[in-house]
Amino acid sequence: MNWKMGEAGQESVIGLVQMNCGAAPERNLAAAVERIAEAAGRGAQIVCLPELFRSHYFCQEENVDWFDLAETIPGATVETLSRAAKRHGVVIVGSVFERRCAGVYHNSAVVMNVDGDLLGIYRKMHVPDDPLYYEKFYFTPGDLGFRVFATPFGRIAPLICWDQWYPEAARLAVLAGAEILAYPTAIGWRPGEKREYGKRQHDAWRTTQRSHAIANGVFVAAINRTGLEKPLEDSPGRPADYEGIEFWGRSFVCGPQGETVAEAGAEPGVILAGCNLGDIDRTRRNWPFLRDRRIDAYADLVKRVID
Amino acid sequence: MNWKMGEAGQESVIGLVQMNCGAAPERNLAAAVERIAEAAGRGAQIVCLPELFRSHYFCQEENVDWFDLAETIPGATVETLSRAAKRHGVVIVGSVFERRCAGVYHNSAVVMNVDGDLLGIYRKMHVPDDPLYYEKFYFTPGDLGFRVFATPFGRIAPLICWDQWYPEAARLAVLAGAEILAYPTAIGWRPGEKREYGKRQHDAWRTTQRSHAIANGVFVAAINRTGLEKPLEDSPGRPADYEGIEFWGRSFVCGPQGETVAEAGAEPGVILAGCNLGDIDRTRRNWPFLRDRRIDAYADLVKRVID
Repeated sequence: MNWKMGEAGQESVIGLVQMNCGAAPERNLAAAVERIAEAAGRGAQIVCLPELFRSHYFCQEENVDWFDLAETIPGATVETLSRAAKRHGVVIVGSVFERRCAGVYHNSAVVMNVDGDLLGIYRKMHVPDDPLYYEKFYFTPGDLGFRVFATPFGRIAPLICWDQWYPEAARLAVLAGAEILAYPTAIGWRPGEKREYGKRQHDAWRTTQRSHAIANGVFVAAINRTGLEKPLEDSPGRPADYEGIEFWGRSFVCGPQGETVAEAGAEPGVILAGCNLGDIDRTRRNWPFLRDRRIDAYADLVKRVID
Repeated sequence: MNWKMGEAGQESVIGLVQMNCGAAPERNLAAAVERIAEAAGRGAQIVCLPELFRSHYFCQEENVDWFDLAETIPGATVETLSRAAKRHGVVIVGSVFERRCAGVYHNSAVVMNVDGDLLGIYRKMHVPDDPLYYEKFYFTPGDLGFRVFATPFGRIAPLICWDQWYPEAARLAVLAGAEILAYPTAIGWRPGEKREYGKRQHDAWRTTQRSHAIANGVFVAAINRTGLEKPLEDSPGRPADYEGIEFWGRSFVCGPQGETVAEAGAEPGVILAGCNLGDIDRTRRNWPFLRDRRIDAYADLVKRVID
């Protein structure tokens, strides 16, 4: 491989807010606002929050009462984030359990600009359904496609958690101009299997997202919640044998060659990543993967299985 | 993430032949045949050779004389590999500089079955062109698409080197039924930049291929050549300042969660990887990424850029 350094480009500072999320939505939202202020005070220009940070991870069970947590967009959370963005002059990538109408809910991301304007929303396209992650019960899959929002600190494509596992999502966002892929996330271990499978699960998660950076020559940010969450005591649908999910934190930002720019441990807090957006152009000149895509041969990617 | 172990499936043993390749084609071919025998003797059922193993890596320069190295398929190399496959009862994934007609050459892979039959060929779809890797001069991009060959030891999709960087290639091969992606490869460092960029380049290469295993729940084998190769002394096109390429070896096999099954260092030799093909089904039950692809939203993957 060849490697040459070019000129420096724009430096954007991304702040990742890694949070414990408890049962009280207003307390989580207030904590997020405090962390946004902290990140901005330390120099962050783009502040990213974890998936569904305003509540505990209610998808551990199927319970219609949790639809009460949903909000319209715009709504209270968007207004709160809007004020925070304007006050600190930062871009915010937030997450909202969106009520679109009776019976149609989405797992959505919002991007707030430095003036407090809502630049737009993204609705999670790939919705999982696994034991303890019963998301298909709550969330209608997104119908807005993959979206890119131009901000003063770079073009951001919000993607959400399960989207992480899909190279198609990353590619489409990059082809549409994204410089930063931001993945608000809620992923963790089942305590009973952490010892045997935990390391491999975390490594696969990290590897897959780093590969999106490499294949596309782009920055990738993953913002995860952290800490053990059990179903709430007063939940009518709560099975007795649930052990909960230990969200593993470990939020990170990597650069366009997959190199780690910043990485958290398991503790809650803010981490900062200085991202020179000029690295995108430098990398793609030397690793010109986008040049050689065989678009004449990719038509079958819209098939479920080629059988 | 959830994780449960199911029943054991078929165990297939893959042997990777990591080679130094010199200037004498017949010597390289004879060395490959010896290594195939060694691999088979140690239990390999599928034996994979590096990209263009029959010659030095002539793409370091643009020189029409090197078209003399090309062969038809079938041709002498295919016949030699056919005899080796039949003698040892192994499947062979080989590599041939293919002369298709005057003026049309390909960088091709061949898959030989245990009875010596040529199961088919794959022509490198993504062809690079970088300083010291002037492949677009020699190779017409493949026109056969991505192909899967059923063998007694698993369904194999041969892909070649630069294809490694394209998640589209891996996905299409897997949608068509591949259980093992085999990448004959010739990748290395420029000696002058190894110290500064070498670690990152190797890590990106390894990470990207592991991500194909994870995203698709499939085995991935990368078979690289090794050792320093300079342009030949008597080459008329040889620039004076070439430092050559230090091919980095480090061939590996990883499983469907990206876990390393076997990995070589820089030395030439044979490494063996026992691959339980039942791991594919077990992994996909627990990491059901293929279930949730948004094929309704992927149409723009056939665009160069969405602009």
